[in-house]
Order: sequence, then structure tokens, then C-alpha cells
Amino acid sequence: MTSYDASPPGIGVPGALAHVIVDAEPDRLAHAWGKSFTDLAQAREGRADHAPDLVAYPADESDVVEVLAWASDAGVAVIPYGGGSSVVGGVTPDVGAEFAGTLSLDLQRLDGVLDVDPVSRAARIQAGILGPALADALRPHGLALRHYPQSYEFSSLGGWIATRSGGHYATGRTRIDDFVESVRVVSPAGAWETLRVPSSGAGPDPVRLALGNEGALGVITEAWVRLDPRPAFTAAATVHFDSLGEALGAVRALAQSDLAPSNLRLLDRAEAATSFVHDGSAEVLILGFESGDHPVEDRLAAGLECCADHAGQAQPRGEGAGSWRSAFLRMPYLRDALMDHAIVCETFETACTWDRAEGVVAAVRDAVLRALASEGLAPASVSFRFTHAYPDGVAPYVTVMARGRHGDLVAPWRAIKAAASDALVEAGATITHHHAVGRDHMPWYRQETPPWYAVSLAAARDALDPAGIMNPGVLIP
Amino acid sequence: MTSYDASPPGIGVPGALAHVIVDAEPDRLAHAWGKSFTDLAQAREGRADHAPDLVAYPADESDVVEVLAWASDAGVAVIPYGGGSSVVGGVTPDVGAEFAGTLSLDLQRLDGVLDVDPVSRAARIQAGILGPALADALRPHGLALRHYPQSYEFSSLGGWIATRSGGHYATGRTRIDDFVESVRVVSPAGAWETLRVPSSGAGPDPVRLALGNEGALGVITEAWVRLDPRPAFTAAATVHFDSLGEALGAVRALAQSDLAPSNLRLLDRAEAATSFVHDGSAEVLILGFESGDHPVEDRLAAGLECCADHAGQAQPRGEGAGSWRSAFLRMPYLRDALMDHAIVCETFETACTWDRAEGVVAAVRDAVLRALASEGLAPASVSFRFTHAYPDGVAPYVTVMARGRHGDLVAPWRAIKAAASDALVEAGATITHHHAVGRDHMPWYRQETPPWYAVSLAAARDALDPAGIMNPGVLIP
Repeated sequence: MTSYDASPPGIGVPGALAHVIVDAEPDRLAHAWGKSFTDLAQAREGRADHAPDLVAYPADESDVVEVLAWASDAGVAVIPYGGGSSVVGGVTPDVGAEFAGTLSLDLQRLDGVLDVDPVSRAARIQAGILGPALADALRPHGLALRHYPQSYEFSSLGGWIATRSGGHYATGRTRIDDFVESVRVVSPAGAWETLRVPSSGAGPDPVRLALGNEGALGVITEAWVRLDPRPAFTAAATVHFDSLGEALGAVRALAQSDLAPSNLRLLDRAEAATSFVHDGSAEVLILGFESGDHPVEDRLAAGLECCADHAGQAQPRGEGAGSWRSAFLRMPYLRDALMDHAIVCETFETACTWDRAEGVVAAVRDAVLRALASEGLAPASVSFRFTHAYPDGVAPYVTVMARGRHGDLVAPWRAIKAAASDALVEAGATITHHHAVGRDHMPWYRQETPPWYAVSLAAARDALDPAGIMNPGVLIP
Repeated sequence: MTSYDASPPGIGVPGALAHVIVDAEPDRLAHAWGKSFTDLAQAREGRADHAPDLVAYPADESDVVEVLAWASDAGVAVIPYGGGSSVVGGVTPDVGAEFAGTLSLDLQRLDGVLDVDPVSRAARIQAGILGPALADALRPHGLALRHYPQSYEFSSLGGWIATRSGGHYATGRTRIDDFVESVRVVSPAGAWETLRVPSSGAGPDPVRLALGNEGALGVITEAWVRLDPRPAFTAAATVHFDSLGEALGAVRALAQSDLAPSNLRLLDRAEAATSFVHDGSAEVLILGFESGDHPVEDRLAAGLECCADHAGQAQPRGEGAGSWRSAFLRMPYLRDALMDHAIVCETFETACTWDRAEGVVAAVRDAVLRALASEGLAPASVSFRFTHAYPDGVAPYVTVMARGRHGDLVAPWRAIKAAASDALVEAGATITHHHAVGRDHMPWYRQETPPWYAVSLAAARDALDPAGIMNPGVLIP
């Protein structure tokens, strides 16, 4: 095992905050990376280039306020840290030389469910709670936050809100945005909390400034979120298609119908094979429905009819869906194991309108293959799945695997990522449907963001964070 | 007929913009008011206190850019004007003395459907188009923008987006927000257009800064909006309840189910009587379903079962719904006729979570009755309907009618409005679910908006509109 080389902290623990802030090496190392391929590769190489100088574990909101006040005065960059599952460099304390130091603000102690309103089906919950603990706390009330991102086990409510995470629903309420009733944010300038109402038409929605702010405008400390009972009725099936075009046609027809499938995940044949869902001879669609209050067999039947209209062949019940779910949860673990064999393995994801979908897939595939060739790597697999679907478009998700060289995994990966990202922007797709911007996506985020909007966002940031200490380098250049 | 007293324009038409800007009295008078009760009352009193000095009719976006550039230099306040149907003073050129003059920017010539994408079911449409023309232009494509606010005949796409209007869907896609795929805004600093994608997780959603900006950040010139085919299947019924509590229980159960009714409008017994829907002996629920692709009779049956669980009595088919729809469209006309008889008649609307709903209704009713009493007016009727429903809350809509005194309609109305608004804020409800803020709601908007969010919004405005000419007094104090 390589020993990590974390340089000594550049700044000491302030005495008045010694109950909140630590500078011990294990804490610093644990907050040096997120969970991207480059993060893991660097960790394996024994590098901790950007370990934070300090780590804070606030026990309550007043601790957060005090830490931000001290950091603003001291010129210390603050990187909010939820579960640490960022795959885009969102929690990496890589902030440039103009700061006196870096502090990772770990919200894990803010993990309480503070209030449950069973009438309105909503709960006030602290931001640092992780997925499983949140589910455990709500279960006695017969309710759940029906939002399960792939990172669910290791990510926090605040992280979901800060990054506008995508959940397990393939249509409808695809994003944490749909579940947030109100939010409370501590910015260096002061705390702000939005009015708790189901919907308001009073001006631009303030919740939407917190959603996706990635810690650049402040720290989300708690939120009221919308809950549901666990679904009493479910029905699912697997459908095979002979071509990606036909399969996408079925997904589009289903997304444009009123059937509202909860699951509508399409795996192309390569992805079906690498996920061990099928043998690679067909595109595979996982189609599922759920309801809290009425049977959904008829909706499944209507959905299968729609698939048949697009030459989809329904498979015997139970085939595929279970193995896909298990592969879905295993996937990030698999990536780590493959790294031991010097396999470059990473994913990109995006969203585009339907008229552009096949063009985006072709452009990204082509860009990745060309980048692999110019890096001298043989592609093991470039596969696509389609994770979320909308009436007006779809979210493609690309998995690239290639045999790399031990000790030289990061540079080829960066070249592939850059080529794919350039292709996305060129094809009119977004740089991310649900992995956020972080530091890794900044060049492409800047291309897709309207410049005058970016100026207005920077102005809003200056008002909320006059010293510019919040997650520097993320969102606002 | 009283002759209007519009004082001469305080500023002349700039020569270079003579093809776009006019200062003729009929144009100025036509842009002096919106459509609130006070607007109409003042118009009838022959007062045009805030007629704009100038009216611009841009023919294209470059005209808009030139007008804003000139106005920024000249210190002239610009009030974007769509259909002029604001009921909250949103288009009234009442801007204070610090401006050299006022200009109403009427977008009626920007009325084209520029592009239709039948695959993604979306269209790029100019902001000045009114509801009926928009429907006419899309009909040949077999598509429609399924968003019909009560003002539909006289309001524009840009106005809907600028004010986050509420449409005819009672659940689900209740608001224009749900239909906007991307938007183009001309701010004095420059134009900005968001990427056209179905959904993106890249930072705070820039579309959400345009939605609800009420012209305070710029002029919406066009948008890509999501379309649907006209519904092929519909089913509706009327249900009577003996108490408001039971009726609200049914509405809540339906909103928290997966049934997704398109119509779920509850009229209390007073509202049912004044709308000529029923005789006033019961609360009346209009329940309707629609789908583009499958029959909805089974959902209606399930919905009626749910109502029966809350002691709702389904009425023979056809009863109520038709007369309600006709009353709904007639209502604004009725208000105008009642004014001839010195009837003070106006509406307020709000939204709140379910746990607060009955408290909000009681508090508003009480506040209105007390205000009427202190104004020496006998209440003719204080009635409630519930226009939109969410899993976590509902949107109550209050209609007040009272016999007033000719020539003294505005002051009593203001007293009633202020009392009701105070009660709303006090009870934890929003100052508006879908009528926007305008000038009339500003004192209460400021109370419900988190102060630090307001500071950040003002900073964003300063970046987009350095001279502060855009709809001054609205949203940003």
C-alpha cells in the first residue's frame, strides 16, 4: 500500500473553533477526493494533491455560521462535503493559490429528521443525512422520499439538492428538484430560508437558486421535502428490440404518452452485455410501473402494446429487470475492481431533445473512439443506456471501458472525457443531466451557459459570499 | 363618457426610433392600466394617472435591443407589455419621479411561431403572441400548448412566462414553468438564451431566472415550449359534499393519489351559487380526466370512489362541469358589469400546505369581513374556490363582493386587499399562486421573500440592467 503524501496543513485550527474544526491527517485525507475515476486513480497512486488543510464537522447551524464567518475573515476556501460521492471534482479542495488555506465542511452531523407533516406528506430534514438513514427515519411514518440516485448509499440530502441529482424515476419526478418544498441555506452573508408552500408564483422561485448551487452560494443546512407512501402496486417487464432506433422510438412514445412509467431504462446491446442483463444480441428496455393506490397491470399492458408498435418483443415476466437492478447498484464497485487490471472505465451522461438524440449518440461514440485511438488504447466497450426520458427528450448515459496502462490511467481518461464533452456541446446536448458541474465540467458548462446569465449568477454570488470563499472554481469562474 | 386626462408626454420620441416608438394619446391611454379592479375603477373615473409617455411596438428583437439601449441612456423606465391583463399593477407605468419618463414596450408584433419540432413536440414561439393566435398557429400541426389561464384570450406567451401563470390543469403541469423548454431574454446588458434541452443538471436552472421575472430583469422575446396533441379521451363528473372539510379531504386524497386528474376544482357553496353552478346547498367538486392516448373512464371511476370515501355524492353525468366552465370564462366580464352597480368585486389567490389550508381559509374570511365592516360595507359574498391542488398543498382563490359607493370604489377595495394579504402572510401562505407580484403585492412579497435571496436577486438585476430601467418598482424595491 502506497503511503499518502499529504503536505502539512497550511493554516492552523482557530482556537475558538477547536470543537468543530480538526487538522488530523486521516480527516484531511478522507476529504481529499470525491469518487470520480481520476479521484480513485490518484488515490491509488498515493497522491493527495489537494487534501484540505482543515476539516470541520459542525454539530448545528450556528457552527456552520461561525465557520463561514471565520473563513471569510481568514480567506480560507470552504468546500461543502455531503457524502463525498461527487464524480466531477465537486468536493476536491483544488482552489488555486489565492486562498490562505482550504477547509472541507463535512455536514455528517447534521443528520436529523426534525419534523414530519403526515397531512401534507412532507418532512423537514437536515442536509447531512445519507440515503439509508433518511429512509430508516421515515419508515415508521409509513413514508419515504422516493428519490434514489445510484449513489444513494453514500450521498446526502444536501448533496442531492446542491447537485440537482437524478433519481430512480425514469419519467415525471426524475430529479430532487421535484421533491424540494423549501430549503434553508447558510451563505457567508447570512442564512435564508424559503417559504414552505406547495407552489408560489411570486417572482423567480428562490428554491431554484439553491438547487444546483453546488456549494458556490452557500451551505444547504436543511430542507422540507415531499414524501410518498411506499408503492403498494408494481408491475414490470423487459422488452427486446432489434435496433436502437426502434427502441428509442418506443421510449419516446412511452415518454410522450400519459402512462407515466416509473422505470423506462433502455440499454443498448453492448450495455446489456456488460451489465450481464442479456447476451448482447438485442437492445433491452426495462419497463416498470408503480402506484401507491391502484393496480398498474393495465398500464403495463398498454406500455407493452406501445412497445409492440415499435417492434419490441416482450420477454417472459421477470427476465432482465432484477439482474439490471443488481448490476445498476454493483456498477460503481465493478469500476473499482477493474481499475486493478488497469482498465480505464468511466461514464458520461447528458440530455438532449428527441430530434437530436441519435445524432448525439453517434457523435459521442465517434469522439470517444477517435480519442481512444489517438491515446493508443484499444476500446473494450463503448456502450449507452438511457436513464431518464421526457416528452421532449432523453438522457443518454455512456460507459467507456478500455485497457490502459498501470500508472498512466488519468491522462488517457482526461483525453477521452474532453473529446466526449466537446462532442456533446457541439451536438447541442448538456454537459450533465445529473452529475453536476464540479471542477471537471467547468470548460463545457461555460460554453453552454448563456454568458449574461453567468454574469448575473456571479453577481448573486458576490452578494451572498462577498469574500468569494464558497467552493471556489465551481460554477463561477 | 368621461374624458381621460393624460398629461402631455414628459419626453419626446427619439428620432432614430420613430419607426418603433409613438407618443399618440390613444396608444398612451391604452397602456395606462392593467385589468385589476382598481385599474378599471380608475379608468371609469376618467383618471390616467400613470399613462406612459411613450409606447414602443418593436417589430423584431433588434428593435427591442435598440429601445432598451436608448432607454438606458435616457433614463427612461421601460414597462414590458404583453396582453395587458395584469391584475396586480404589473404593467402600470407608476415608477416614481427619478426617471426621465416611461415607455410601455408592447410586444404584440412579436407574434410568430418560428419553428415546430414535431418529434420532440416543441415549438419556438415569439413572446407577444396571444393565446388564441398561438392555438390557431399550432392547430395545423395537430399540437397545442396545453396551458389555458383564465386570461387566455387577452394574455401573451411572454406574459405567462414573465408571471409564472397558472393554467387549466388543476394538478401536475399547473404552471407555464412546466412547459418552457428554453427561453430567450433581452436584458439591457445583452441578450441571453438558454440551451434547448429537456432537462439539465448543470448549475441553477437559468430558465428559472426568466420565469417570474415580471420584466424586471429583461424582456422575454421568445421561448421553446412543450406541446401536446389535443386530448383524445376525456371524462368528467361533478360531486357534491355537505361540508368544506370533507370536500377538501377528497381533494387532498385525489391530489395525493396517482390518478392525476386534469380538473380538480372545488367551489365552496357560496362560490357555487355565485357562479350559477349550484343552488348553494352544497360544496361542488368538478373532477375531470384527459389523455392523448388511452380512455380515462377507469380513472374517473377510481376518482369518484375516492370522493365517496369522503362522503362525496357523484351527480348525474354532465351536471355542473359545463356551467362551471362557462362561468369561469364569464367571471371577469361579470366583474365589469357589477362595477356599474357600484359592487366592489375582486379576487385574491394564494397557496399553502395542506396542514394550513383550513386555517388560511378561516383567517382570510375573517380578515375580509372585518375590513368590510370597518369600511362600512355590507358583504354580499365572500366565497372560495380551490383552483390547483398538489400532493403537499392547495391553491385557494377568494372572491369578495360587496355593495360599494359610486366614485369611492378604490379605497375600500385597497383596505380589503391589504387586510386579506396581511392575513395570508400571517397564516404562512404565499401572496400569490399565479397572479404575480406586480406593484400591488410588493409589501407582502417583501415579507415572504428571504431577505438574502432578495439581495442576490437585486445583484443579478444590477448586472443585467445596470441603469435600473426595467419595470421599476416590481420585484426589486
